[in-house]
Amino acid sequence: MGRTFTYPKRSTNTVKRYAHRATYDVAAIHSIVNSSQVLHVSFNPGPEDPFPTTLPMIGQMGSFEYPSADLGEPLDCYIHGYVSMRMANLARDSEQGLPVCISATKVDGLILSLTPFSHSYNYRSAVLHGYAKLVTDDEEKEWAMKMITNSVVPERWENSRTPPEKSELSSTSILKVKIVSGSGKVRDGAVSDEKKDYQDEEVTSRVWTGVVPVYEVLGEPIPDSSNKVAKVPDYIKSYVNSRSQESREYAVAATKITLPKEEQH
Amino acid sequence: MGRTFTYPKRSTNTVKRYAHRATYDVAAIHSIVNSSQVLHVSFNPGPEDPFPTTLPMIGQMGSFEYPSADLGEPLDCYIHGYVSMRMANLARDSEQGLPVCISATKVDGLILSLTPFSHSYNYRSAVLHGYAKLVTDDEEKEWAMKMITNSVVPERWENSRTPPEKSELSSTSILKVKIVSGSGKVRDGAVSDEKKDYQDEEVTSRVWTGVVPVYEVLGEPIPDSSNKVAKVPDYIKSYVNSRSQESREYAVAATKITLPKEEQH
Repeated sequence: MGRTFTYPKRSTNTVKRYAHRATYDVAAIHSIVNSSQVLHVSFNPGPEDPFPTTLPMIGQMGSFEYPSADLGEPLDCYIHGYVSMRMANLARDSEQGLPVCISATKVDGLILSLTPFSHSYNYRSAVLHGYAKLVTDDEEKEWAMKMITNSVVPERWENSRTPPEKSELSSTSILKVKIVSGSGKVRDGAVSDEKKDYQDEEVTSRVWTGVVPVYEVLGEPIPDSSNKVAKVPDYIKSYVNSRSQESREYAVAATKITLPKEEQH
Repeated sequence: MGRTFTYPKRSTNTVKRYAHRATYDVAAIHSIVNSSQVLHVSFNPGPEDPFPTTLPMIGQMGSFEYPSADLGEPLDCYIHGYVSMRMANLARDSEQGLPVCISATKVDGLILSLTPFSHSYNYRSAVLHGYAKLVTDDEEKEWAMKMITNSVVPERWENSRTPPEKSELSSTSILKVKIVSGSGKVRDGAVSDEKKDYQDEEVTSRVWTGVVPVYEVLGEPIPDSSNKVAKVPDYIKSYVNSRSQESREYAVAATKITLPKEEQH
């Protein structure tokens, strides 16, 4: 029930591509990031401000230099969204880049135990630390935008008005984060109670225990009033269905409770 | 389509309860926080570390002094979860408390426009800045745990093994965050494209545009193998159903697209 994993201590994701071998841990962390619709990106706005600040952004792990790199290899995190003037300046002004913390969390289930103090969530979370720089090369920017767009709906890039114009690229901010460390945490399984409670018949006879699976659904696509294409294309339809089904299946499987035959559906 | 709102500039949520009048903006920010299953809490681990770090936690806005305060009034944020030794020490050692940034984001829809550069999400997000201290008073801790437990499933506190024992309270960490500023952002509506694209017949004839609603579902509750209660209690069942339905309805309504009669369900 649950595990924590971290980047190999010496992984800096910078110099020697083959010096750091793929590990399952790195793949797990990267896959949590890549399957999250939102990343929370924190940074310090300046020495006069005691508070870090956080922006919700969208991003993907990838390697522009080695586009075929898989999830277990050292990757950069490309993020897109509203980049404030302050954040852009900080990223530009520092040679190394702006220190950021990127986090992603998915709730997979509510764990309802006998006592509130044993309640929990099934969840997956990942945290990355790294240095952010603005991407200035148009080719790299376009590559990153394509990767990010297709993470929202696979094949969307190819099926929308592309390639981008030069002005679109120049007005778009993408941050590339060189990762220096990271960790992930997964909690799965069912309820976990203390002996004094699960041996107390008065308690077990009245308190229902179990897991409520939690999952994100993509609903029926709704055409815009300006849309001119008669039918929802297959690449959208099939993604909407498969993603919703996979999320549900993951949440149910994460409970690790075997359902009685008649309840399996 | 979309709006940004902020805490009144001088709200410090500390001294005079009636000095700061309820505003819709504050209520909106608080309600995003309270309806989020996960809060991302960022802080700076120390001067030698350039990176802020982020922990996924669970929390609710509330007022222990004025428990009947509504969402539009100044409230504290009570958060619970894994509080690292470092975080606990920092919160204890500083008189004012540990400066933290709390953020909450919900995705409500994928906005599929004609060009990737006009793609977006419907979403709601809130960010709060404040000072975190560990709650040391047992009565306040129990009050906060009850509020947080019932935010996961309403009435769960009353329907599980409570009240807590003294040892349970003492081994539980709750942070109370005095809020000094905050802001929220909501994006809703349908696609928004540029003239050059929506007037281009070649583009509009082949690119489907619209919104894919995104919403979180609570699945059928799965009893634990140790559960002794025959049926899923009504307070769980009805919450599971109503929350899933409300999430779906919000996501569809946020598109602001009027569905043809036969497609309304």
